[in-house]
Amino acid sequence: MEGFIENGLLIVGLGFMGGSLSKELKKKGFNKTIYGLDINPTAIEIGQNLGVIDKGFTEYEKVPWDEIDFVVLASPVGTFETIAKLLKGFVNGKTTVSDLGSTKRLVYKMEKIIGSNFVGAHPIAGTEKSGVIYSVDNLFEGKKVIITPTVDTDKYHLQRVENLWKFIGAKIEYMSPELHDFIFGVVSHLPHAVAFALVDTLRELSDKKVNLFEYPGAGFKDFTRIAASDPTMWRDIFFNNKDNLLKSLQVFKKSLEKLEELIREEKKEELKEYLGEISLLRRSLD
Amino acid sequence: MEGFIENGLLIVGLGFMGGSLSKELKKKGFNKTIYGLDINPTAIEIGQNLGVIDKGFTEYEKVPWDEIDFVVLASPVGTFETIAKLLKGFVNGKTTVSDLGSTKRLVYKMEKIIGSNFVGAHPIAGTEKSGVIYSVDNLFEGKKVIITPTVDTDKYHLQRVENLWKFIGAKIEYMSPELHDFIFGVVSHLPHAVAFALVDTLRELSDKKVNLFEYPGAGFKDFTRIAASDPTMWRDIFFNNKDNLLKSLQVFKKSLEKLEELIREEKKEELKEYLGEISLLRRSLD
Repeated sequence: MEGFIENGLLIVGLGFMGGSLSKELKKKGFNKTIYGLDINPTAIEIGQNLGVIDKGFTEYEKVPWDEIDFVVLASPVGTFETIAKLLKGFVNGKTTVSDLGSTKRLVYKMEKIIGSNFVGAHPIAGTEKSGVIYSVDNLFEGKKVIITPTVDTDKYHLQRVENLWKFIGAKIEYMSPELHDFIFGVVSHLPHAVAFALVDTLRELSDKKVNLFEYPGAGFKDFTRIAASDPTMWRDIFFNNKDNLLKSLQVFKKSLEKLEELIREEKKEELKEYLGEISLLRRSLD
Repeated sequence: MEGFIENGLLIVGLGFMGGSLSKELKKKGFNKTIYGLDINPTAIEIGQNLGVIDKGFTEYEKVPWDEIDFVVLASPVGTFETIAKLLKGFVNGKTTVSDLGSTKRLVYKMEKIIGSNFVGAHPIAGTEKSGVIYSVDNLFEGKKVIITPTVDTDKYHLQRVENLWKFIGAKIEYMSPELHDFIFGVVSHLPHAVAFALVDTLRELSDKKVNLFEYPGAGFKDFTRIAASDPTMWRDIFFNNKDNLLKSLQVFKKSLEKLEELIREEKKEELKEYLGEISLLRRSLD
């Protein structure tokens, strides 16, 4: 796999995701320089000390832009617009700019600011952990990466982004930003919202007499693991995909009410059948 | 650890939980006979063939009651009352009768039918798998077992149940049936209800164009694993702990609405703070 990065790669936002991208590229034999840019000096320091990146910066002005022909945004999606405006002063149309963001309709905003060299991508991989210190070298291989080109996306840059993910061994899937945001609003953003609300419920129902967190029963820990996720990242995702998330929350609440009614009315056969169907559906995922 | 079973043990309802109890006892060197009773001949056949139990029966009349001084109910809680009435004709006050059920206020019903030799117990261990074929020999060691004696519980039988779980190496905790059902209504039954509703939401939102089950994003699979659980078992739990479950569902819906509002109104700082608090709380469980 050749031709996706000729000079150097810059990762903007050096956290768990960006760090893991860098580590996995290095593990796979990527031999160009990987730079990191983060406003947090600690992230850069850790990234350099652990060898996650080759060289890091906290200021745009210090970055050796001439040696970079590929930029990946790996920060919370709420920072993308600001970063795009800053990048605009340093990169030209020859530099591929892509991202790892979990919402994709902001691609339109990005290409308006940066140009047709922006290509949206969302690798379906992650963890509830945050910070470059936790980054791993095997996060993306074999995982899906959703690439969301628009009518304006430049074919050359699209190909380079595809090549990057092929090099890592990810499974590429194309879809529109709109379809992406609908799907992940339901299968990812909704479950995260639900997990946060569930942990909040335990807090609300705990008091001086009973600390419910002392009884993390079977399922609860797995179930709410994702509620330990990074607050800024998830706030930004929730805002960026607000319409889809709020719509799917309405459907979820209807599902909840349907279940509630079957329980309240003690509909023996109906509830068994309903749970049986769902159990079967869920089993089919394993 | 001596003196908890002098003759033989009978497990009524031979599924994953009962089978795992038997296997773990045998692994720990338990040398009395373990019998199984199940209306399903296949469960008995599998249990015998795999050596999970020593001998199995599908009819109460066939069980060698004289050789049994300890009975454990391991079937869905909805069957307990019927089983208790049947057992009553075969066991006397010298036989300890206990259970593995996930709801505990039905202990009062059980001791009314069986007597003060009934002792309620709930091992906090399990899986979404069901069936004796999946049973394991290391489910209970180191796990919590909640024992829920009432004012009427016979001390001798209580001690025998305690000894059984000590022999296995579980961590015993005592509480009232009421407190048990409140706690597990929130930390276990509510998350299961939520997981079922969440999988239902994916079904509702899937159509001919998009099968959302093809995108089990990060977190979703873990999050909904428990929705693959046995439908009869969970229907019975939901009915038996209906009041607590419905109350905690109300609180959960309020938590959801709080989160929804923060998202709808795009309260940047408040949402970040809220998610940060929850993330911290959840992290404290690991």
